Amino acid sequence: MLHAVIMAGGSGTRFWPASRRDRPKQLLDLVSGAPLLRLTFERLVGLVPPERVWVVTNQTTAIACRKVLPEVPDGNILAEPVGRNTAACVGLAAHAVGAGDDDAVCLVLPADHLIGDEELFRSAMSAGAEAVARDGGLLTFGIQPDRPETGYGYLEIGDVGTRIGRWPIRRLEAFVEKPDLERAQEYLENGRYLWNAGIFAWRARDLLAEMERQLPDLAAGLSRIGKALSGPDAAAVLAEVYPSLLSTSVDFGIMEGAERCWVVPVDFPWSDVGSWQALADKLPTDDQGNATRGRTAAVDAAGNVLVTTGPVVAVAGVNNLVVVATPDAVLVVPKDQAQRVKDVVDRLHELGWDDVL
Amino acid sequence: MLHAVIMAGGSGTRFWPASRRDRPKQLLDLVSGAPLLRLTFERLVGLVPPERVWVVTNQTTAIACRKVLPEVPDGNILAEPVGRNTAACVGLAAHAVGAGDDDAVCLVLPADHLIGDEELFRSAMSAGAEAVARDGGLLTFGIQPDRPETGYGYLEIGDVGTRIGRWPIRRLEAFVEKPDLERAQEYLENGRYLWNAGIFAWRARDLLAEMERQLPDLAAGLSRIGKALSGPDAAAVLAEVYPSLLSTSVDFGIMEGAERCWVVPVDFPWSDVGSWQALADKLPTDDQGNATRGRTAAVDAAGNVLVTTGPVVAVAGVNNLVVVATPDAVLVVPKDQAQRVKDVVDRLHELGWDDVL
Repeated sequence: MLHAVIMAGGSGTRFWPASRRDRPKQLLDLVSGAPLLRLTFERLVGLVPPERVWVVTNQTTAIACRKVLPEVPDGNILAEPVGRNTAACVGLAAHAVGAGDDDAVCLVLPADHLIGDEELFRSAMSAGAEAVARDGGLLTFGIQPDRPETGYGYLEIGDVGTRIGRWPIRRLEAFVEKPDLERAQEYLENGRYLWNAGIFAWRARDLLAEMERQLPDLAAGLSRIGKALSGPDAAAVLAEVYPSLLSTSVDFGIMEGAERCWVVPVDFPWSDVGSWQALADKLPTDDQGNATRGRTAAVDAAGNVLVTTGPVVAVAGVNNLVVVATPDAVLVVPKDQAQRVKDVVDRLHELGWDDVL
Repeated sequence: MLHAVIMAGGSGTRFWPASRRDRPKQLLDLVSGAPLLRLTFERLVGLVPPERVWVVTNQTTAIACRKVLPEVPDGNILAEPVGRNTAACVGLAAHAVGAGDDDAVCLVLPADHLIGDEELFRSAMSAGAEAVARDGGLLTFGIQPDRPETGYGYLEIGDVGTRIGRWPIRRLEAFVEKPDLERAQEYLENGRYLWNAGIFAWRARDLLAEMERQLPDLAAGLSRIGKALSGPDAAAVLAEVYPSLLSTSVDFGIMEGAERCWVVPVDFPWSDVGSWQALADKLPTDDQGNATRGRTAAVDAAGNVLVTTGPVVAVAGVNNLVVVATPDAVLVVPKDQAQRVKDVVDRLHELGWDDVL
């Protein structure tokens, strides 16, 4: 049966001051009136029922995740004691999912992306899941690039193995690290390179078999956890074993060396909403091209991102800035330097102002 | 006897969002831990006792003024029903002050200036008051310019009439409207032009006599109010007559045409703190030259004015901006366009967001 595994363990700082240690991006209502995690869940309606939706998160946010997804059984919300990258995360989920379902197929989805055409999305997911249910192997979905993006990893695609409906299931040749601009331009023109969005499909047992073959120590640790998961010692074993697990990504730790890997090229509108700048495209704009959310006012000011969950934000005579306000913190940074929010967070930590982090 | 008349009727918007309709600049604690009005009062200690300090303000802020100056008798806080410029204001004060004191001398002081050397200030004020007590006439104090400022009016000075201590009492030749930059540069080099700071000294009866001679209607209206001031109808007469008074400045309405006018050139550090930009000089600066007040943090950011009375303000990669935060409003504007706060306030009013004005 098809299960969805939502990876919700992120604790990034790129959306400070909206995001906080106990309110990471996936719990933020950035665009639409609902947290990104909630949107990810609702996107699955008709494809996977709530009782087969699983969430892997951390202990700080597990309770918040339960509140955001009341339809999902409490036992389906798995809290990592510490983050151990995506290989351990999907391995943990495979044990949880596979425990009651030998033929379990996992769709693995980041909790904090935005997707535009949800029907197309479900069609692609369904095709990918069907492919691995029938033929095995590890499958990833590749996003058609529309710009020479240097902030993502790429997937190099090979021949078409088979088709399901409108979707070709292609061989995956290689994972490619984030390129420089020149190479990204080549990838864009070449057509054989897709963005790696971190969306996967596999049978739980196929993933675990690959893990055992390539990363036996990780597999053994996860197996110990898996055996204890439904018993009374689950929390204790998790707390003991999980921190000792190898920290590696599913892409490079498992799929890069796997025997059979597939990629489904997909063309639904997709964004990982990686920064305040990236969010700008998803917000309504005023007549001067300012992307706005909340009570904001701009006088002779263009191209800004103005977001508030608290105070009125008013700007005059400034362009291409990000201005974000919450009841207890305000950020101002040029739009093309939006990644510097990390430096700001570091500085606030140095100052001892952890109350706003 | 010497009285001080503090003009505290201002309702400007130049310090929004710190200033509000019911909390104008003179009630703000902009630099030192006390409202500017309080600093103005404390600057007079040793020169004028609290029972001879008078405040002319408006009905919105009269109660706040009383709270800021508990030492001043309630009856000394005069509330204009509407603003009628400075001629009416000083005339009202002259009636109030002169009612119990035929030889009353008024020192007239704006409530919202900053002055650096208070001992020197008191020495100059004392000399000016002594001059008019002895010789009559209307006297103003002129600030030695240190830059070609186009934002102030100027005083053209004449010959020295007399001296009191270190202070020459000079003839006042003319009031000069705000000049353009070229002319301001000439004034700076010429040496016979001083900034008009709106600080005055005169005997109450001399002011009222000049007013009667030059502006008989205004004088008559004020006289009606003056007669009623200590009686039970004071508020009613004030409310009836004051709105009908001529609105003109003391400089151009009275002093420009007066028979004997003096100016005392003064060299104490002075600022009218006319904008967020002007405030920058009065605040502590960090090692990147950001003027700061409250919890603020700057990463690779220089020359900004960062002020908060509420949220933490954090900036990165921006220069020469004004960023001001309060619990319910945030302003971002380039430092050299600080005067645009007025446009912002207009815009917020258009949007109907008067709750933050």
